Amino acid sequence: MQTYILPQKNQWLKLCQRPIFETADLDLPVAKIMEDVRIRKDEALFNYSKKFDNCSLENLIVTTQEFTNAQKKISKELKEAIEIAAQNIKFFHKNYLEKTNRIQTMQGVECWRRNVAIEKVGLYIPGGSAPLFSTVLMLAIPAKIAQCPEVILCTPPSPTGEIHPAILYTAQLTGITKVYKVGGAQAIAAMTFGTESIPPVYKIFGPGNQFVTKAKEQAQQRGVAIDMPAGPSEVLVIADVTAEPSFVAADLLSQAEHGSDSQAILLCESKEFLQKVKKEIKKQLSSLPRRAIAEQALKNSRLIVLKNIDNCIELSNLYAPEHLIIATKNADKLADKITNAGSVFIGNYSCESIGDYASGTNHTLPTNGYARNYSGVSVESFIKKISFQKINANGLKSIGKAVEIMAAAEGLEAHKNAVTIRLQNLNNKTK
Amino acid sequence: MQTYILPQKNQWLKLCQRPIFETADLDLPVAKIMEDVRIRKDEALFNYSKKFDNCSLENLIVTTQEFTNAQKKISKELKEAIEIAAQNIKFFHKNYLEKTNRIQTMQGVECWRRNVAIEKVGLYIPGGSAPLFSTVLMLAIPAKIAQCPEVILCTPPSPTGEIHPAILYTAQLTGITKVYKVGGAQAIAAMTFGTESIPPVYKIFGPGNQFVTKAKEQAQQRGVAIDMPAGPSEVLVIADVTAEPSFVAADLLSQAEHGSDSQAILLCESKEFLQKVKKEIKKQLSSLPRRAIAEQALKNSRLIVLKNIDNCIELSNLYAPEHLIIATKNADKLADKITNAGSVFIGNYSCESIGDYASGTNHTLPTNGYARNYSGVSVESFIKKISFQKINANGLKSIGKAVEIMAAAEGLEAHKNAVTIRLQNLNNKTK
Repeated sequence: MQTYILPQKNQWLKLCQRPIFETADLDLPVAKIMEDVRIRKDEALFNYSKKFDNCSLENLIVTTQEFTNAQKKISKELKEAIEIAAQNIKFFHKNYLEKTNRIQTMQGVECWRRNVAIEKVGLYIPGGSAPLFSTVLMLAIPAKIAQCPEVILCTPPSPTGEIHPAILYTAQLTGITKVYKVGGAQAIAAMTFGTESIPPVYKIFGPGNQFVTKAKEQAQQRGVAIDMPAGPSEVLVIADVTAEPSFVAADLLSQAEHGSDSQAILLCESKEFLQKVKKEIKKQLSSLPRRAIAEQALKNSRLIVLKNIDNCIELSNLYAPEHLIIATKNADKLADKITNAGSVFIGNYSCESIGDYASGTNHTLPTNGYARNYSGVSVESFIKKISFQKINANGLKSIGKAVEIMAAAEGLEAHKNAVTIRLQNLNNKTK
Repeated sequence: MQTYILPQKNQWLKLCQRPIFETADLDLPVAKIMEDVRIRKDEALFNYSKKFDNCSLENLIVTTQEFTNAQKKISKELKEAIEIAAQNIKFFHKNYLEKTNRIQTMQGVECWRRNVAIEKVGLYIPGGSAPLFSTVLMLAIPAKIAQCPEVILCTPPSPTGEIHPAILYTAQLTGITKVYKVGGAQAIAAMTFGTESIPPVYKIFGPGNQFVTKAKEQAQQRGVAIDMPAGPSEVLVIADVTAEPSFVAADLLSQAEHGSDSQAILLCESKEFLQKVKKEIKKQLSSLPRRAIAEQALKNSRLIVLKNIDNCIELSNLYAPEHLIIATKNADKLADKITNAGSVFIGNYSCESIGDYASGTNHTLPTNGYARNYSGVSVESFIKKISFQKINANGLKSIGKAVEIMAAAEGLEAHKNAVTIRLQNLNNKTK
């Protein structure tokens, strides 16, 4: 852990730097996979499954039988937990759906917007060490609230050709029936171009390793939308002396265990407090199963003492953390000053992991500084807002002249003419 | 104009193809400009202004004097027209701002989202044959409603180093004070990296030629957000026999005059109607100042007779037009069936140019099929939605166990521990 005591302001930008990962050398290998899947389709996917998942598949799609078997493998206790989370996520997300609100901007000129689901969306769920069924909740629930007609899910199989039962259970719970056994860049390629088994989609969601991230970038260049640019996960904790050092240490560690590239930052006002947190980190770290990963991540991590809490807020807004925990007196008031963050956790009992799983907010959030210019995933991520307008004869009469003048001033006579010809027609009628 | 009478359904996808423009050969020249501006900053900009705008500049920023002079050059009539448009756009856009709505998902678990403006945004307004002051309205008004603290505007100067007065007038009217005389890829580079004169921004908006489009792509790869991917403008008109052929022709032509790469499509039920429209196009075309451009664009254009209006809707949804005009009986009901479109114009008097300028809706819309997966510009384009949550001791007690179970099932023990350590602390307190 790097420790900084009262760093000068001219150092702050440097303190906001993320670990840099050069991925330009993935451009070509990923482009090759994309092209191979585009041309050879399913055949290429079976091939990559052998190569990367060490698995010989006969079919890509998960069968009804496999869904049924998954149900049996999940404990009652886990099912209940997932259902509580699903309920909260559903309840929170459905509240943020814009109503269709017809607005008369002038007499006879009516304008509105309508939410329309993106017709085909694809969710990617990584495999590997942790079966991220929580991410299935976070992506599938808003997709279903948005009423996307087609929602598919790709996730890599185990060497025995299986998908983790918790992922299948959660997919089924959230109403996803099309789950495909394909991971990595090849999964993104399949959703971009479509194969015999897998339909192409208009937008791709979900986390992944650097190959997946690069493939999503390339998919975007080919016209498929993506949820947001990716980067390693991160947390920033602002704490004063009212915070509990053991809680803060636990929060920093829960970020650190995500991956060796994760970043955890503590901003506080007191050197003594910082030392207490450091001590707690060491203590808690020793018993973690993912200790090796967390230790690696802690090397990127920073414990920083600043002059006061205002400075902490200022540096946090500069850093633009994915997750921000405010464990201070008056945390509510401070939260109002936050201008750049993905998700903010207020007070000593609001730990990030509650939001990661079950409180209701989404955990697919902008990281790597993207909280400056992107929002997290929500129902809106799964819809387009189409604008509509209806202008009647009166409306045309009230607004027509302004349009004619502006179109002429922009040198667009045909634009003007589309109004003029209608106004003339109206005049002829009234004669 | 290409004419198709009752094409088979298996031809439809082909009819939805846009003119293809290969821009891969711009990758390198644009990357060079980006890199040059990154390193040499203002010096590079002055240099490109000489080279591309044929203009020797002393300063990049527009002075107060220049704003004042612009005021005098705009007719009272044009000022009034712009103000009517500005009022409608403001009135429409401010209606679609989400309220901060605190939601209790469980007892003691409170979650909400807050709109926060993107701190620094850049608007690009092209120069060239038409001074697009209407686009200043469409970008600056939502930026100001969003309350972005810094809004800058870049637009190329004339050979005499001037900016069109209508652009300056509109900028001032909408509250933009920082206007820079720089165009092309170099303007996008300046807003991406910042120079001595021009501050870097977090999101770039606005139309432009293929160099600008390519530069925005490259800016996005460097972490700057952009409004949406670009493409040539397009309109699709669905008309039955209740439509007025001269209106339809005028609408198709107002699209065609945008640029030689524009596309205008007519879907109708009757060959006779199609012929009438064709005749009207020829008639109206002859008197257009931008006739040469429109003629070129009409080569990409398609007049298509389909079996019935339902088929027209189906093909339109497949095409996903930027602008859709529905000039039919029951146009309202048909509008409800639209699933892919940027902006929809309902009925004979709702011509596209009214929405382009003054009705209140935004004219920065997804084109090139992107209406399948992107929305047009709105106030939301200028904000991030930060999520917040506050969990108290009761909340932790009600939700804690579910989080512990889920975290453990994902193999993330530190996530679990962040809850466990808090629950233990609470238990100790109550003892």
